Amino acid sequence: MSPHWFTEQHEASGSSIGYRISEKLADEQTPFQHIEIYATTDWGNLMVIDGCTMLTTRDNFLYHEMMTHPALYTHPAPRNVVIIGGGDCGTLREVLRHPEVESVAQIDIDERVTRLAEKYFPELCESNADPRAKLLFDDGIKYMAEAQSDSLDLVIVDSTDPVGPAEGLFNAKFYASCFRALRKGGILVQQSESPLVLLDLIQSMQQAMRGVGFSTTRTLPFPQPCYPTGWWSTTLASKGGALDGFREKDASAKPFATRYYNAAIHRAALAQPEFMREALG
Amino acid sequence: MSPHWFTEQHEASGSSIGYRISEKLADEQTPFQHIEIYATTDWGNLMVIDGCTMLTTRDNFLYHEMMTHPALYTHPAPRNVVIIGGGDCGTLREVLRHPEVESVAQIDIDERVTRLAEKYFPELCESNADPRAKLLFDDGIKYMAEAQSDSLDLVIVDSTDPVGPAEGLFNAKFYASCFRALRKGGILVQQSESPLVLLDLIQSMQQAMRGVGFSTTRTLPFPQPCYPTGWWSTTLASKGGALDGFREKDASAKPFATRYYNAAIHRAALAQPEFMREALG
Repeated sequence: MSPHWFTEQHEASGSSIGYRISEKLADEQTPFQHIEIYATTDWGNLMVIDGCTMLTTRDNFLYHEMMTHPALYTHPAPRNVVIIGGGDCGTLREVLRHPEVESVAQIDIDERVTRLAEKYFPELCESNADPRAKLLFDDGIKYMAEAQSDSLDLVIVDSTDPVGPAEGLFNAKFYASCFRALRKGGILVQQSESPLVLLDLIQSMQQAMRGVGFSTTRTLPFPQPCYPTGWWSTTLASKGGALDGFREKDASAKPFATRYYNAAIHRAALAQPEFMREALG
Repeated sequence: MSPHWFTEQHEASGSSIGYRISEKLADEQTPFQHIEIYATTDWGNLMVIDGCTMLTTRDNFLYHEMMTHPALYTHPAPRNVVIIGGGDCGTLREVLRHPEVESVAQIDIDERVTRLAEKYFPELCESNADPRAKLLFDDGIKYMAEAQSDSLDLVIVDSTDPVGPAEGLFNAKFYASCFRALRKGGILVQQSESPLVLLDLIQSMQQAMRGVGFSTTRTLPFPQPCYPTGWWSTTLASKGGALDGFREKDASAKPFATRYYNAAIHRAALAQPEFMREALG
């Protein structure tokens, strides 16, 4: 087979990112979305949902480490964690690296994402059998609306873009559910797109989060080659705690290996580029 | 005209980046290279050389600010600067923002890059008439080989990739010329590609720089959406000075506007992701 390319043309930014592929490994229409898996020549396997690149074997460590470790090393004692979305299980794996975590529930609406990840991204699923982990396939909005009050330390929203199935994860009603379910000092973490292209979205997310009661919000940028513009961000909102510091000593002595995150990178991610500082204050 | 796309397929990484374009504005074969300029729908104008994206109106601020301000705020008193390459004049403009700079010579081999930049990226050329600036169109390798010893504070190598015309800018012989021409405490700055893809190149650059006498080297990563993987780096080498600190007070009180760089971002760029720390020490 001659090599060819998978390319995602991102309408909102008028830019595209593509990968040279060697073969298509899976193609499924689930009740929720269209999932494709490709083998690439240089990036390992590639998962695409509804035409949008979700992850590659080679660069997902950036996203998964930055969606988890900054929040886990900011919270003083994260014990109970919920992941909304995250069906590839990479975020779950990173959360479970923290020995103080006692329970993690992952709620993804589409079981097929997890089943395909188990097959094509097995390294991300290596902790799925951890007794602290519970994998549910259900509606995350409903799950958070029904979650017990003051029962969680972290809610991590690891979703697709704020259009389509994930739209309901980017609004005040959902944030209010998360706020209610979090204990004092709890942190909501949400992927927040490209700071270069969607600064408006980040602004309105931060405003909506503060509007439902979160005392502080902070957006941490990081490189993510496979997402539009190659530059991504995670937004944290704290229920009464601070987000400008973290447990630096613990992060410096982390009992597990990472490829991007370390204490210096955590401090670095708290720095705001000039245009973000001006827009977000 | 129906919108279409310009796409650069980057062989070395098996990935591509593209832009939705509305028209082609220029197409020239010079004695040195093939230059194209496109108007894009979302990124302003786009310059392409030999099929490789050089810059867009929208995101060049990241590259130009990070190729200049970290070095200029690290050197205690940068007065005499040479830019090798840099024909679009964006690096020149940023250097000239520093009032303590007394002279900047820009040596690009291809005058047509500058003439096209004057027409299609006029904002980058707005300081070309500064009396401190001298624009030369000549061979940068020869220029540095013939430069007076101990005469410069900064040499900034703002070149294309280390294949083709710019190949001679990435080796020990060229670094030795730069070392000789720099005063004590002087800094060599070179664009050093994607840390994710070309970490080997960064390692060998750092080794070659230290091999010719530079006492310290440091690679600073930064986001750059239009270059392969959207993540780029600049490597600094110091002739006897340190690179882990900088004039933070001066950077915090910088007398000019930026869009990415500030003192916090400078500190952040000194943080090494775990995989870079392991590879580069």
